[in-house]
Amino acid sequence: MKPAIGRDTMMCMSLSARPGNFGSRFHNHLYEAMGIDGVYKSFSTTDLPGAVAGIRALGIRGCAVSMPFKEAVIALLDDLDASARAIDSVNTIVNDGGHLTGYNTDYGAVRTLVTRSGVAADTPFVLRGSGGMGKAVAAALRDAGQTQGTIVARNADAGRRLAEQYGFGWVAELTDAPPAGMLVNVTPIGMRGGNEGALAFPEAMIAQAMLVCDAVAVPVETPLLAAAARHGVARITGEQIAVLQALEQFVLYTGQTPSDAQVAAAAAFAAAG
Amino acid sequence: MKPAIGRDTMMCMSLSARPGNFGSRFHNHLYEAMGIDGVYKSFSTTDLPGAVAGIRALGIRGCAVSMPFKEAVIALLDDLDASARAIDSVNTIVNDGGHLTGYNTDYGAVRTLVTRSGVAADTPFVLRGSGGMGKAVAAALRDAGQTQGTIVARNADAGRRLAEQYGFGWVAELTDAPPAGMLVNVTPIGMRGGNEGALAFPEAMIAQAMLVCDAVAVPVETPLLAAAARHGVARITGEQIAVLQALEQFVLYTGQTPSDAQVAAAAAFAAAG
Repeated sequence: MKPAIGRDTMMCMSLSARPGNFGSRFHNHLYEAMGIDGVYKSFSTTDLPGAVAGIRALGIRGCAVSMPFKEAVIALLDDLDASARAIDSVNTIVNDGGHLTGYNTDYGAVRTLVTRSGVAADTPFVLRGSGGMGKAVAAALRDAGQTQGTIVARNADAGRRLAEQYGFGWVAELTDAPPAGMLVNVTPIGMRGGNEGALAFPEAMIAQAMLVCDAVAVPVETPLLAAAARHGVARITGEQIAVLQALEQFVLYTGQTPSDAQVAAAAAFAAAG
Repeated sequence: MKPAIGRDTMMCMSLSARPGNFGSRFHNHLYEAMGIDGVYKSFSTTDLPGAVAGIRALGIRGCAVSMPFKEAVIALLDDLDASARAIDSVNTIVNDGGHLTGYNTDYGAVRTLVTRSGVAADTPFVLRGSGGMGKAVAAALRDAGQTQGTIVARNADAGRRLAEQYGFGWVAELTDAPPAGMLVNVTPIGMRGGNEGALAFPEAMIAQAMLVCDAVAVPVETPLLAAAARHGVARITGEQIAVLQALEQFVLYTGQTPSDAQVAAAAAFAAAG
């Protein structure tokens, strides 16, 4: 049992234009299971500087940062960890007595999952998207050893810049992408509340892939992941990324590491929300 | 059962240099008992403007304000309710979609308790203290009908101003105060963590009073209240004030009124914290 909420309770939070409940459910479940005096709540805001001023003034220990704040928040922080500095994208703020440091835990999560998948370094991949999550994923793919990548992004500036930075190719349209053994979606295609029914890659590309990775975490079964399952293609799910990056946040905030069973229980509770 | 904390959870909080746990325990207990999707946490800050910016930016629904912020916070708000305007002291912020209104629920609580006590309007009283709580209590006493008051405050400016504003007398030292049927303490004398063992009025004055009122809520039994009990003197306790003003905040924040039994249970839980 964790203590009743009070003045000594550590508070963590998230900031997003369209907040979900995954983080609240994941972190609060672990606080309860591990007897940690903490509370976690997701917030939306239209005033990012005011929200960050509040984090500092109230001593909020940690904050997850989602779209569209991952880049804009950087100017409001005191320091960037290497995980965020390399990609100019912050998804996590750690508050040490008013000193705010930006991290990117998506980067580490994707890198770990790609490495674990055992995909060969020279497997050609296509990465669709070039936003904040795209930068974390492109960096993670390169640092996991992947050398043969093509970024598909209609935003030519962002797409070209990302491709050049990490030594990958760029095309504007999927129809111009080369054949690929690994397909990675970092657009909101397939996300609840957005383009939910849509498929991020054509069925034929999916059928020929060895590994499909979807950064969309809600719903757990996106059309892309469902198609991969139909074709017997290995998957890295948005939920796996969400859990692994949230776990890294949890460790950063609390300094404690839950057991695998505790993580699995928290992830199941979070996914049910 | 209230729902798991998430994006739709109403958050309320308190701001104080030395936060207690009474409010957190009282409000969270009622959320749980009434199935309200809310969470309440007390905070300390050294940056009041940043904290208020956070309240606004994060859509925090309500905030209790304690020493030393009750006056300084006024300049950061959009509006003052009559309860706060009359005394230039805010102990409660209500956030309606970014529009912040300041209230003073201590005023209403003290006024109600003095009226309920049945003390005669011409009973001479001595009010010790002239801070933020002193203003709320002086206004409440006047509006409860009390006409014969003396304010005892070493701070001559604050003491004189308060006395003049409400038509009472002022003296700097207790030894110069006239005999009184009602003794009211609004200093921190007897408060936990401060001057805890000290008695706010001399034993002889207490023995001759008909009613003693102590604004100190923690501990529940201050030396002043214990002395009143020993001499069979009627009491208005800091806990009674704390519960009644917190109940008024609860209604302002949630629009819901708990039953007397629910209030009693929440108050007992809060006092045990």
